[in-house]
Amino acid sequence: MSLDPVLSRIDADLDQSITRLMELLRIPSISTDPAYQQPCQDAADWLVKDLQSIGIDAQKRPTPGHPMVVGHVGDPGDAGPHVLFYGHYDVQPVDPLELWNTPPFEPELQDTPNGRVIRGRGSSDDKGQLMTFVEACRAWKAVHGKLPCRITFFFEGEEESGSPSLIPFMKDHAEELKADIALICDTSMVSPGVPSIAGQLRGMLKDEFTITGPTIDLHSGHYGGPGLNPLKEIARLVASFHDDDGRVAVEGFYDGVHEVPADQLAAWQDCGFDEQTYLNSVGYTVPHGEKGYSTLEQQWARPTLEVNGLWGGYQGAGSKTVIPSQAHCKITCRLVGDMDPAALQKKIRAHVEARLSPDAKITWDKTPEGSPASVMDTSRPEFAAARAALSAEWNREAVVTGMGGSIPIAGFFKSILGMESMLIGFAHDDDAIHSPNEKYNVESFHKGIRSWARVLDEMTKG
Amino acid sequence: MSLDPVLSRIDADLDQSITRLMELLRIPSISTDPAYQQPCQDAADWLVKDLQSIGIDAQKRPTPGHPMVVGHVGDPGDAGPHVLFYGHYDVQPVDPLELWNTPPFEPELQDTPNGRVIRGRGSSDDKGQLMTFVEACRAWKAVHGKLPCRITFFFEGEEESGSPSLIPFMKDHAEELKADIALICDTSMVSPGVPSIAGQLRGMLKDEFTITGPTIDLHSGHYGGPGLNPLKEIARLVASFHDDDGRVAVEGFYDGVHEVPADQLAAWQDCGFDEQTYLNSVGYTVPHGEKGYSTLEQQWARPTLEVNGLWGGYQGAGSKTVIPSQAHCKITCRLVGDMDPAALQKKIRAHVEARLSPDAKITWDKTPEGSPASVMDTSRPEFAAARAALSAEWNREAVVTGMGGSIPIAGFFKSILGMESMLIGFAHDDDAIHSPNEKYNVESFHKGIRSWARVLDEMTKG
Repeated sequence: MSLDPVLSRIDADLDQSITRLMELLRIPSISTDPAYQQPCQDAADWLVKDLQSIGIDAQKRPTPGHPMVVGHVGDPGDAGPHVLFYGHYDVQPVDPLELWNTPPFEPELQDTPNGRVIRGRGSSDDKGQLMTFVEACRAWKAVHGKLPCRITFFFEGEEESGSPSLIPFMKDHAEELKADIALICDTSMVSPGVPSIAGQLRGMLKDEFTITGPTIDLHSGHYGGPGLNPLKEIARLVASFHDDDGRVAVEGFYDGVHEVPADQLAAWQDCGFDEQTYLNSVGYTVPHGEKGYSTLEQQWARPTLEVNGLWGGYQGAGSKTVIPSQAHCKITCRLVGDMDPAALQKKIRAHVEARLSPDAKITWDKTPEGSPASVMDTSRPEFAAARAALSAEWNREAVVTGMGGSIPIAGFFKSILGMESMLIGFAHDDDAIHSPNEKYNVESFHKGIRSWARVLDEMTKG
Repeated sequence: MSLDPVLSRIDADLDQSITRLMELLRIPSISTDPAYQQPCQDAADWLVKDLQSIGIDAQKRPTPGHPMVVGHVGDPGDAGPHVLFYGHYDVQPVDPLELWNTPPFEPELQDTPNGRVIRGRGSSDDKGQLMTFVEACRAWKAVHGKLPCRITFFFEGEEESGSPSLIPFMKDHAEELKADIALICDTSMVSPGVPSIAGQLRGMLKDEFTITGPTIDLHSGHYGGPGLNPLKEIARLVASFHDDDGRVAVEGFYDGVHEVPADQLAAWQDCGFDEQTYLNSVGYTVPHGEKGYSTLEQQWARPTLEVNGLWGGYQGAGSKTVIPSQAHCKITCRLVGDMDPAALQKKIRAHVEARLSPDAKITWDKTPEGSPASVMDTSRPEFAAARAALSAEWNREAVVTGMGGSIPIAGFFKSILGMESMLIGFAHDDDAIHSPNEKYNVESFHKGIRSWARVLDEMTKG
């Protein structure tokens, strides 16, 4: 089956592809907030219907949380590898809403100095990226009447909220989901125009704690002085997480972390990443992490302990002379190498509890989540096929990169289904994913669709 | 004019006095929040009408903020001192609302193990305390047809939000407001049943700052590591405010602080204050402030730097892997001795700015406020009269105490009107002022009214 008419069909159908993506973007499928349960159902229904429209046997599958979407096309005897394509239809919360220039769930096409973009929550992470693969399949089917290989589609709706239903679902449906390799489109290009395949991903640990001092909010005139202030207490605890060199000061934190081999470091230095541009684009002039490591190493190959939320006391207009009863902190760690999430959680909790003042009480998240880092087997033939396909589409040698983000699914595909993953994404670092004014470049979307068409072609030809 | 029938009238009228107070408590006059502008007007109107009902020439006076209430009764030739009575009709915000057991502005009489209480925002601070004086005047007028001396009433509606209109108003109406002494009912008894007159008050400095790191919220997978996290930055800055001994580590912070004379310390030790009860009542087992000072000294005679609000990042359900663009902190200091609020503000700002990381930008409150500490002239005859009156009502020697809170008005009466203040209050430490479930003991209200009747009698007899 020839590729060229598929690429032409993709070009001709781009406006309709964008219209379909916008329909999906209008559904506010925020998975972490229980108020958006119905929109998550709606997004799953939309995907089932869309997959069915291109001849895929797709269904919504219930879970205790948000539903999965599973679709199948092709038969065991089909030529080429059997691939599973994974994406997620849920999105991050939109706060702070007042910083959005347009409503997050009313997507718009906008012209910017860096080209045309699709603006709206989920445009990049992950609805836009997910639809690059679906649109590639649609074009292939339209031109050739069938897809080039056997494909399983697997979309979840809890990626942005820790995927609580994912592991049980994968275990219960292991036979149905097994394929030769998983394709995942949820990552960025290392720099604009440089096609990128992820060779390693950081893992993740999430936790949260509340410090209680006095049993009630107090007046700072009465208890200011003798009273333990949970805000001062939590600030001291958070400040204790790092030393003056930006290293995490939790004992044993770096157990299982390996230095990057020299040849890999050299390859990364040549991958088109411009440190100053990367930092300047968000208002930084220098890297702020661990001393002695480049920005790229800090992001791809070093673990972190970040504070994602910190709050307590009065936040309104004016002032309130209060010593609040409680203070709260949400943290996430990025894990590399062989760091063990469960062991790390114990170390962090021990670090905090050893530093608590008398009369300070602590409660921890009842459902912390962790996943180890992933390192891909890039020697597989599918990686060679993807490198060739991407290099042809982007007129630039594809690079195998690290990734700062955490895509736990890759680890689960390996551990539960014994299946390698290949992560190819077309996002830009300035897409503002998880932030106000998220966008996806139309070029990412268009050439992303074309890229998948080429990858399917390369993997199945000869 | 004899006192006894006035006291009898107060006893007989108590239920009506409580009913009137509850009317006032139902008006949600939160001064710091612009949404409650009308209720502040309503509370002022209510007071004008109530004063007029007992023959006082009272008016609502406009300011750029919430109005003042000013009332006059008596003439320059009247016997006895001319007193000014000051109180405030505004209240603190009610958050966190979910911790209230009854709606904050639907006051209730409740029976508790410590006696009957009036529950609701403002019941103690300051509507209940303010009405003790008004009710004493009402009884005096009902019995004798007139009040025992010349009285000016002066109520403001911005005490809980920094009193921005107070100084200009006092300056513009200095002649009208001048009296021999100011009486203020906005303080606590040092312990239940021990009548207390404040001999010194702490001053106050308020400030607020925002730390901006990246120009937008970032994904912690991309910038976690190289990115400056404002939450970590603000925690480090807040943690730098104190050393390991609980002392404020800002250079020059203690300039103007004097140690308490030994005889005064001895008197305080004998004033009925029970440290363990005071600490245990809110969940503490030990004092947490400056090492080397008792709880009472920490509260009355030592300065503080407290954090009243600290926030940034994601606070909702679930988790969000964000590095937020901004973090915020509200602080207040309590001042003693000769500490200079303006100089102190500069020192604190210099402390913070000297510790900022590269790429961290800081903005400060445009309208910080400060007032120095006050020390009263307790040798005046009105203090002797008040001690005698209070000792008679409470069957216990009245004590001259310090006060941890800040009542800037006392300093302004001195500096603008050349007038001493006498602060007598009937609140309890467990009244939960500024907190959910604020209450005022009915005993405080009842004996508070009787106390003022006795004070007026003692000051004007002979």
